[in-house]
Amino acid sequence: MKPVCLVIGAGAGIGGTVGKRFAQEGYHTVLCRRSDEEGLRRLVEDIEKDDGSASGFLMDAALPESIEERVAAVEAEIGPIEVLVFNLGAQIGDRALADTPYKAFELGWRLATFGLFRAASAVCPLMEARGKGTLLVTSATAAVRGNAGQHSHAAAMGGRRMLCQTLNAEFSPKGIHVAHILIDGAVDAPDTLGKLLGPERFQQFREARGLEHDGLLLPSKIADTYFHLAQQHRSAWTHEIDLRTFSDRPWWNH
Amino acid sequence: MKPVCLVIGAGAGIGGTVGKRFAQEGYHTVLCRRSDEEGLRRLVEDIEKDDGSASGFLMDAALPESIEERVAAVEAEIGPIEVLVFNLGAQIGDRALADTPYKAFELGWRLATFGLFRAASAVCPLMEARGKGTLLVTSATAAVRGNAGQHSHAAAMGGRRMLCQTLNAEFSPKGIHVAHILIDGAVDAPDTLGKLLGPERFQQFREARGLEHDGLLLPSKIADTYFHLAQQHRSAWTHEIDLRTFSDRPWWNH
Amino acid sequence: MKPVCLVIGAGAGIGGTVGKRFAQEGYHTVLCRRSDEEGLRRLVEDIEKDDGSASGFLMDAALPESIEERVAAVEAEIGPIEVLVFNLGAQIGDRALADTPYKAFELGWRLATFGLFRAASAVCPLMEARGKGTLLVTSATAAVRGNAGQHSHAAAMGGRRMLCQTLNAEFSPKGIHVAHILIDGAVDAPDTLGKLLGPERFQQFREARGLEHDGLLLPSKIADTYFHLAQQHRSAWTHEIDLRTFSDRPWWNH
Amino acid sequence: MKPVCLVIGAGAGIGGTVGKRFAQEGYHTVLCRRSDEEGLRRLVEDIEKDDGSASGFLMDAALPESIEERVAAVEAEIGPIEVLVFNLGAQIGDRALADTPYKAFELGWRLATFGLFRAASAVCPLMEARGKGTLLVTSATAAVRGNAGQHSHAAAMGGRRMLCQTLNAEFSPKGIHVAHILIDGAVDAPDTLGKLLGPERFQQFREARGLEHDGLLLPSKIADTYFHLAQQHRSAWTHEIDLRTFSDRPWWNH
Repeated sequence: MKPVCLVIGAGAGIGGTVGKRFAQEGYHTVLCRRSDEEGLRRLVEDIEKDDGSASGFLMDAALPESIEERVAAVEAEIGPIEVLVFNLGAQIGDRALADTPYKAFELGWRLATFGLFRAASAVCPLMEARGKGTLLVTSATAAVRGNAGQHSHAAAMGGRRMLCQTLNAEFSPKGIHVAHILIDGAVDAPDTLGKLLGPERFQQFREARGLEHDGLLLPSKIADTYFHLAQQHRSAWTHEIDLRTFSDRPWWNH
Repeated sequence: MKPVCLVIGAGAGIGGTVGKRFAQEGYHTVLCRRSDEEGLRRLVEDIEKDDGSASGFLMDAALPESIEERVAAVEAEIGPIEVLVFNLGAQIGDRALADTPYKAFELGWRLATFGLFRAASAVCPLMEARGKGTLLVTSATAAVRGNAGQHSHAAAMGGRRMLCQTLNAEFSPKGIHVAHILIDGAVDAPDTLGKLLGPERFQQFREARGLEHDGLLLPSKIADTYFHLAQQHRSAWTHEIDLRTFSDRPWWNH
Repeated sequence: MKPVCLVIGAGAGIGGTVGKRFAQEGYHTVLCRRSDEEGLRRLVEDIEKDDGSASGFLMDAALPESIEERVAAVEAEIGPIEVLVFNLGAQIGDRALADTPYKAFELGWRLATFGLFRAASAVCPLMEARGKGTLLVTSATAAVRGNAGQHSHAAAMGGRRMLCQTLNAEFSPKGIHVAHILIDGAVDAPDTLGKLLGPERFQQFREARGLEHDGLLLPSKIADTYFHLAQQHRSAWTHEIDLRTFSDRPWWNH
Repeated sequence: MKPVCLVIGAGAGIGGTVGKRFAQEGYHTVLCRRSDEEGLRRLVEDIEKDDGSASGFLMDAALPESIEERVAAVEAEIGPIEVLVFNLGAQIGDRALADTPYKAFELGWRLATFGLFRAASAVCPLMEARGKGTLLVTSATAAVRGNAGQHSHAAAMGGRRMLCQTLNAEFSPKGIHVAHILIDGAVDAPDTLGKLLGPERFQQFREARGLEHDGLLLPSKIADTYFHLAQQHRSAWTHEIDLRTFSDRPWWNH
């Protein structure tokens, strides 16, 4: 039986690409995303064409029990989850305080912070009983510094980062590897940045970043590091790592 | 008319003592706390006996509109808020993930992160219109590192710290001083630590820390720094500061 | 007998102004700087005109035994040093790696890191024997993030910051207060920024920052916080604090 | 012609093992260490037995021109350096300030900070001309927090970390990958920890950490991550990463 990799937040950017990478390496990948059933179907087909194995589920992580039931169903019907990739974002663009309704502030927390808490509450006891498991948590610059207009996003991500540390403190000695992966820059991802900018501005942005398209973080290259982290021996685990493209400045330099 | 200092979270520890200090320095202090009407009344009386001026209100910050209405009422009935001290804590002691219900995780966020967002949403536009104002935000070690059992508290405080940075980025150039004050250690506070430990263990703990009682952070001494921060000239503002007792190790050393 | 405040690096910016402030508050201030005997004389006279008490010494801190002998002489001839302000800078402007000679890299360390180590080695045993004392260490943005062209400065200041933490770990429980003060922005200081830019560009820079001259950190306002730190009760000491002008962005936002 | 990996500080722990790993992956590895010619010979032989390719040189990095001449000689006689592993340590155990002579403080800087500056000054212009290259810099907990007795080590490592950031700011856009690798815990390394503790205490320490010997950071597992970092695509580079064993607490939790 193949080990299982569950991806929560499996769009066409980091989530889907990381899922594909684990499938290529012999995992059965379970892809969950909120919408775009057609895109989800294509992701699964791509993996299967490539001789990989995958399942796809639409899931609204904001709904009560959605994550919990998916974790239980995967464990019951597919197999033990070895790797959980938590990739829900909560970027809503820059908004002044006056333009950030309570609902937007709360939704950021509900997806990015509470969502991880729910996923961890569901999967950590199972992993603990097996003495092993991996949580790969995608994070953002906003987890380490709050910038203008990022009220909702930074509060959510800052909470997420501290939660990763408390999870690590409790579960690392029990064999569960928790990694907080700081994506420090724009990702070449049509489902997130692409939607934020709109198709035309997204394409202009990509071209401005360079012909070789490596002025943006490329999801397939990000996936190399996600996979490496999941393979690290427990004597040398990484808890926090940053990733950015060579031509971009780190967050502390701008 | 006296300048107004509004304290949200005015127990017998940091909140009440800081309020008293501002009253001694010529502010009218408005003290808000969730319970213990008798204790609140005593605080106000103490201030008045000392020739200071204060008002007290019971307020459950977890209730919708509680903070918003209090801010509006103070502005309408007492005067413009010059200093807002946000002192709501969310420490619930160390609890393993399995012992941290969703409700507890959410309540931490609701008080410590969302509460500040609501307070800032209410008061910042008023301060911005006046071109000045101060937000003093009490924070905790858990805002900068997640420790075992601190799932709810660290996620809430980590979010709070990032929120302070986004507020600062937006409002500092508009003349509003946002300070994130890291209380890194146990405070000699009967209403928080005292309740967490119970009266007997609290007394033992105090005695173990030294006869001179400065092995704990003393609220009256903390208040000196809160007051200093509120008086800093805008050419030399502090955004982040830590406080601990001389005999304790900083968080990065244990 | 007045308590003594020894300032190492007492130019017309932070160092001299902090020294003046301590003199106003009843300390005898000892001012040490490398050059400009005339400027040093004026500083002492200014303090004395103001009914304060001060001494001034030219001292090249890069020379062996200079700091050590000054500490010993002050203790022998003037009185016990209560507060040592370590204010030697090592900013040499932005220089590419190829334009940073070994000598420049070493000099940065020699003044900013090793200088503090020597000062601490001289004064801490004396303060330890007295059970009290304060080290106020001026620091810079470069202590927490390395930016392009800051090879010498950032390496020196990063070392200085870690040294402050090791000094604090050893000496705080012995009653010595070590504070690392992060000056995060340009200071209105003719002897440092003024010399770096030249008088004309310095004046243009000042004017561009605003008519009220509070778009730059004002030394007299910085001095308020230095003095506050030295007065903190040992139950609520600050180890790290940042200072910047309201109109400037913090280092993590640019 | 094989790509070249130059290891400065190639003892039997991280340095030698990382070198071996690069040799296994097709690099010619150049190993430099201060002493133990016999151990160095064995390392080279081990690599060659394994069909790898390596050279070994004794080098006292504290001597002027030692690093510079080695870099030049490798480039002239062996080939262009693709990867430089800077692995000089400066841990001298915990020593109170009074037990840390100036010489010890300076030596820490000379090896750990200035050594890296010299290596970067020698190799970066060559890598820049080629438009690519990798600097993997081993670092330690002391780079991010100063603990009691670590005056020399923490000052040196804190400076090193900031230097890595200034190097990254200048050279990342030119195609040079600078990675600061925080080894946060004890390494199973006979040449460093082994010598610090002595053979008997080192063996006891290893046994106390667990029968499977993964309660210590294992150099061969550390090497996996060094190699991964050197293979990262330039659209997704890591600048900072931590490594620790699963059973140990991160530095921020103790």
